[in-house]
Amino acid sequence: MRKLISAASFLVLSTVLARAQGIEITRNASAPSTVGDNKLFSGHAVVDPLFPANAFTHGTGGLVTFAPGARTAWHTHPAGQMLIVTSGKGWVQQEGSQRQEINPGDVVWIQPGVNHWHGATDKSGMSHIAISYMKDGKNVEWGRLVTGEEYAK
Amino acid sequence: MRKLISAASFLVLSTVLARAQGIEITRNASAPSTVGDNKLFSGHAVVDPLFPANAFTHGTGGLVTFAPGARTAWHTHPAGQMLIVTSGKGWVQQEGSQRQEINPGDVVWIQPGVNHWHGATDKSGMSHIAISYMKDGKNVEWGRLVTGEEYAK
Repeated sequence: MRKLISAASFLVLSTVLARAQGIEITRNASAPSTVGDNKLFSGHAVVDPLFPANAFTHGTGGLVTFAPGARTAWHTHPAGQMLIVTSGKGWVQQEGSQRQEINPGDVVWIQPGVNHWHGATDKSGMSHIAISYMKDGKNVEWGRLVTGEEYAK
Repeated sequence: MRKLISAASFLVLSTVLARAQGIEITRNASAPSTVGDNKLFSGHAVVDPLFPANAFTHGTGGLVTFAPGARTAWHTHPAGQMLIVTSGKGWVQQEGSQRQEINPGDVVWIQPGVNHWHGATDKSGMSHIAISYMKDGKNVEWGRLVTGEEYAK
């Protein structure tokens, strides 16, 4: 019982200290990762939330990790999206345009309303930070999955 | 002469292809890094721009790399700042509160108007992505440098 009270007190104290009023620290892996829904992603993708959308951030922040061959479905963002590639090698394609390769350090701006997909290459995994900006309470409109033929072109 | 025309044509073509209309890719290291001004940073800090502030992003994005012992001066952000720690070990401190350690994967939200500093620890370097939100055309108000005594406390 004493150990339980000590543990609980420690957690409360840690949270209070970590908050320090004007600075809020969200510790690494404090929120669980989620595996990408198979209606929204082909192959294996993992989403780690980074920060929420609010009046300050204007969009959600997350880290998305794609296994080789994994990609999002076709989709659009009503207020655009910024990608910061952090590891691996990936592809991004706008509907009607050539598929483009992206590498660590590359920053990708996807304009509002543009139908596109992004993911790993067929040979290499890829991770990127994604900031998806909000408009009228939404930051994405999902379409259909990217076919094997579209992905490989 | 022919080689010059070929090289120029290739560059133009690459830029056009990389733009693909609705998708804009800014390639890794395409903009030069800058060394932090010694009125704004103590020790050695390098700033790599990631994306500009505009009507879509609402703030600038940059990657800041601090050598051990390096830190920002005291400063505030009129619309807040989000830090995503990508490597190393660092410290962040709000005026009047305890210094806090930050590690890779930690996300730090600094509220508008809060006087604070951040940087590497004295023993380890640290890198973080920093998104500095804009208000009335500004995203930072710089104060004085952090003294050795303040830093080490």
